[in-house]
Amino acid sequence: MKQKTLEPGMLYDGSQIKPMWAFQELGVKGSSIVTWIGPMDIEAEELIDYEDVGLEITSAEMVHFIIEHFDVQPADMRLCYHRQRILVMIVKDLLGEMGIKCLRKGDDLYVGSGKLSVSIASCSISSMKIHFALNLTSKGTPADVETTGLTECTPGVVREDIPTLAEKICAMYIGEISDIEQDIAKTRVF
Amino acid sequence: MKQKTLEPGMLYDGSQIKPMWAFQELGVKGSSIVTWIGPMDIEAEELIDYEDVGLEITSAEMVHFIIEHFDVQPADMRLCYHRQRILVMIVKDLLGEMGIKCLRKGDDLYVGSGKLSVSIASCSISSMKIHFALNLTSKGTPADVETTGLTECTPGVVREDIPTLAEKICAMYIGEISDIEQDIAKTRVF
Amino acid sequence: MKQKTLEPGMLYDGSQIKPMWAFQELGVKGSSIVTWIGPMDIEAEELIDYEDVGLEITSAEMVHFIIEHFDVQPADMRLCYHRQRILVMIVKDLLGEMGIKCLRKGDDLYVGSGKLSVSIASCSISSMKIHFALNLTSKGTPADVETTGLTECTPGVVREDIPTLAEKICAMYIGEISDIEQDIAKTRVF
Amino acid sequence: MKQKTLEPGMLYDGSQIKPMWAFQELGVKGSSIVTWIGPMDIEAEELIDYEDVGLEITSAEMVHFIIEHFDVQPADMRLCYHRQRILVMIVKDLLGEMGIKCLRKGDDLYVGSGKLSVSIASCSISSMKIHFALNLTSKGTPADVETTGLTECTPGVVREDIPTLAEKICAMYIGEISDIEQDIAKTRVF
Amino acid sequence: MKQKTLEPGMLYDGSQIKPMWAFQELGVKGSSIVTWIGPMDIEAEELIDYEDVGLEITSAEMVHFIIEHFDVQPADMRLCYHRQRILVMIVKDLLGEMGIKCLRKGDDLYVGSGKLSVSIASCSISSMKIHFALNLTSKGTPADVETTGLTECTPGVVREDIPTLAEKICAMYIGEISDIEQDIAKTRVF
Amino acid sequence: MKQKTLEPGMLYDGSQIKPMWAFQELGVKGSSIVTWIGPMDIEAEELIDYEDVGLEITSAEMVHFIIEHFDVQPADMRLCYHRQRILVMIVKDLLGEMGIKCLRKGDDLYVGSGKLSVSIASCSISSMKIHFALNLTSKGTPADVETTGLTECTPGVVREDIPTLAEKICAMYIGEISDIEQDIAKTRVF
Repeated sequence: MKQKTLEPGMLYDGSQIKPMWAFQELGVKGSSIVTWIGPMDIEAEELIDYEDVGLEITSAEMVHFIIEHFDVQPADMRLCYHRQRILVMIVKDLLGEMGIKCLRKGDDLYVGSGKLSVSIASCSISSMKIHFALNLTSKGTPADVETTGLTECTPGVVREDIPTLAEKICAMYIGEISDIEQDIAKTRVF
Repeated sequence: MKQKTLEPGMLYDGSQIKPMWAFQELGVKGSSIVTWIGPMDIEAEELIDYEDVGLEITSAEMVHFIIEHFDVQPADMRLCYHRQRILVMIVKDLLGEMGIKCLRKGDDLYVGSGKLSVSIASCSISSMKIHFALNLTSKGTPADVETTGLTECTPGVVREDIPTLAEKICAMYIGEISDIEQDIAKTRVF
Repeated sequence: MKQKTLEPGMLYDGSQIKPMWAFQELGVKGSSIVTWIGPMDIEAEELIDYEDVGLEITSAEMVHFIIEHFDVQPADMRLCYHRQRILVMIVKDLLGEMGIKCLRKGDDLYVGSGKLSVSIASCSISSMKIHFALNLTSKGTPADVETTGLTECTPGVVREDIPTLAEKICAMYIGEISDIEQDIAKTRVF
Repeated sequence: MKQKTLEPGMLYDGSQIKPMWAFQELGVKGSSIVTWIGPMDIEAEELIDYEDVGLEITSAEMVHFIIEHFDVQPADMRLCYHRQRILVMIVKDLLGEMGIKCLRKGDDLYVGSGKLSVSIASCSISSMKIHFALNLTSKGTPADVETTGLTECTPGVVREDIPTLAEKICAMYIGEISDIEQDIAKTRVF
Repeated sequence: MKQKTLEPGMLYDGSQIKPMWAFQELGVKGSSIVTWIGPMDIEAEELIDYEDVGLEITSAEMVHFIIEHFDVQPADMRLCYHRQRILVMIVKDLLGEMGIKCLRKGDDLYVGSGKLSVSIASCSISSMKIHFALNLTSKGTPADVETTGLTECTPGVVREDIPTLAEKICAMYIGEISDIEQDIAKTRVF
Repeated sequence: MKQKTLEPGMLYDGSQIKPMWAFQELGVKGSSIVTWIGPMDIEAEELIDYEDVGLEITSAEMVHFIIEHFDVQPADMRLCYHRQRILVMIVKDLLGEMGIKCLRKGDDLYVGSGKLSVSIASCSISSMKIHFALNLTSKGTPADVETTGLTECTPGVVREDIPTLAEKICAMYIGEISDIEQDIAKTRVF
């Protein structure tokens, strides 16, 4: 599984959740986790979460993660959402260690009553995709939702530390998935 | 998914990881999570983890969880280990909220340098099984492994609170799996 | 699995076979069976059965059933068609008990030489869909096909009894699928 | 899918439900349905249905069906039980046409209050197995269960007609499974 | 699995890789292998291989093979590419027996430094598709790729022998897949 | 996927086909291909191929390959036999390049009328296993089967070159499987 960090600034408009985005746009072939800092403004036609239909999904600055898995054929939404949960729990854990106590509800993280993250999963028959992103600030988020950002928490994350944090998250996620594969190979079955 | 709490005292000897144990021994039919307090002493022929061959796997008192899932046919070791990780992370989270800071390595929890838990997953073609257990004390654990127990941590868990904690873990796990199913049903695919 | 009965009158135009229709149009989330009385006129671009290309698929009044299953991931056309057959056989059985002797050919029901029903199955990667409908009368059915309707059989079904019949079919189908799940959980495997 | 009718007389002792029985004992390779008339007396260690543990499962004379499917890899208990239901419904239908009105509860057929049939399904990772059998008489059936037999119904089936009936059941089952495969190949998916 | 040979001349424009093409265009229902001689000119929007984006994929005359498999549900890209490799290896073998020594790199065949073949696989949720084609000559192939054709090799294949060769390839492929199914049915599993 | 070459001499008695053999006996964890030179004498209770029941399966000296795959969960006999065929075709190819023209029938290689190889595949729910072996000489092979060995062909393989040949086979097989995974990640699906 490959890891790639992009230059800051790319807008997350929802097109990045499409299967094969990393290969077509970045030349990254095979399973991967890509991270970058940039705004979010999801176009209606790119919506994946039918519960979000009609909602504004925006943020001025987030740290994004796009994951694609080709290891399971055919792709499986159930496994994909399990992996998404594992990712979110890894992030919650890591923030906790940095002193930022989050509350997790499903695939959402909150700090106090402020929503910190967005996430969705999807798949085609040949790959599983996950998008997860954390607000850096609450700037540019929808007016009707109480939000917060990593740099606004107490203690907040210094903006300069985000790239390191992002890569640590990637490494921990990759490690976890690889670790699970190792466990299968040591286990007696019935 | 059913939840059942057994009377304290039953020895975990490894036979409970076998598929259909809950139905054959307890009359619990279908997917379930069973919890009880009791000692552990795994017999060699019941070993599931080939890395444990030749090791003593014992503890005088643990809170045990046995999970069986029939929802996925045929059963899938990969998904099973993802669910195991989610269970372990839920427990870590919950203990953290109680002030017990754990370190997780794969499916093991540590408090300081003391190993707090054991876990394994397995499956037959028709069901997925998970065993997870937390030491209440380090009594009766192998001499060559540094261990700790829930009641020995600082702040420790009072013994009387274990059953409530156990049922909370069960409820959170059941909720998480159910929540994932809900998420599948709201998601656009490609 | 949820059951919902709609107000009579909605046209079945083929769009209802699309995955997530029940959630997007009715707010019904998760596996479901929806039933209603209404006409049918399938638009060419909504055709699912390639053997029907170029055919007129119409009826002035039918009792419709739309089923969606999210339990199996990834969705499986083979299982979906098995479930469709089970539904059709349940209906045949029930009509037989009411004195209406049907002949079943694959997924079609006939009374004498009159075609009584239409059915199709389809799926996306995350859900399995079934449409099944019974003519109430032969009114509005294609001129080149001999058809019949529930109210035209001898003994015919009184129009007022259709909703009750429809809900009985739903209940029996839901019961059967649930019963199969129970059977898995009592069975020894090799 | 092959069909084979055996000489009457072979005891069904439960060993025939084992995967590969038809190949190892009869030289029938690949998916098959085998039928014969013979007694039943299931040995405790051959029990597949954990709900039958401790019960006597006997009959002096039954018409047996043993099905094995290799088409789905890995084998799937869920699909297997769907196929079993389809078989039982085919039999119920056929008996109904002969004037024997049965009641079906899951995979059991009753005539009046008398249990007419037994059935179980199972699988290994490479094949799915189904056993289904109908009593010819209630002779030799357990004293604590009310049973009936095909020749004891009104109108009863004449003993000489059983082999023809059995082969008709086989042909209809094989036809149904093949028909489902055909339907997959004409269906648009999403 | 059905085999069909078409009249020469049909352009391969990439549309034939779509699921259900054989049924919709040729009335061939179920798993099949179709072969014909004709040119190739793949339209950009029909491209399946994202590595070919922007490339010209043309040839004046090729012998084409289009395979569709419905046996595995849901379809599986991994299995599909295994079958593609088996097809390519069968062709390499057969050409070798005719004295044409090929080099295989993945799914491409070369004679000397000339590329002899093109191939791709794809699938929908209900079927697996493979396209494989061999140049008859290098005429009409992209200027920037060194190519060769069956009739240009030494010893070359006489043009009149291509249909026989094509049908032999079809027969060997069908035989291999059928043979694998037979092997499953003779194998003990754990 | 790991490759390991063992010291010559180990008897292949059939026990090596069991899942997890490489981990339990050699400490090789995860997918692997293990090769060594040694005799073969399969014990009756280790037989996997039910067509071999009652046959003597022996050879004084062979080059063995034991493959285990954990990548597909649950394991799949169909895919496993496809991989076995790919392995056998790779070997045939390689021998052909060395001037040894083989005939392949399913998973058997022949040189002239002499059987050169044996092979079987099997699986548990969590791994797929393949055994393939080539006779070095016909010594010790069953009297009732015409056999040949790599060193007895014309041109024969020099005994000293066998280890290099074996490792080349391993490398080519590993490369092929990895190459297939790469192809999935570049392919558009429907």
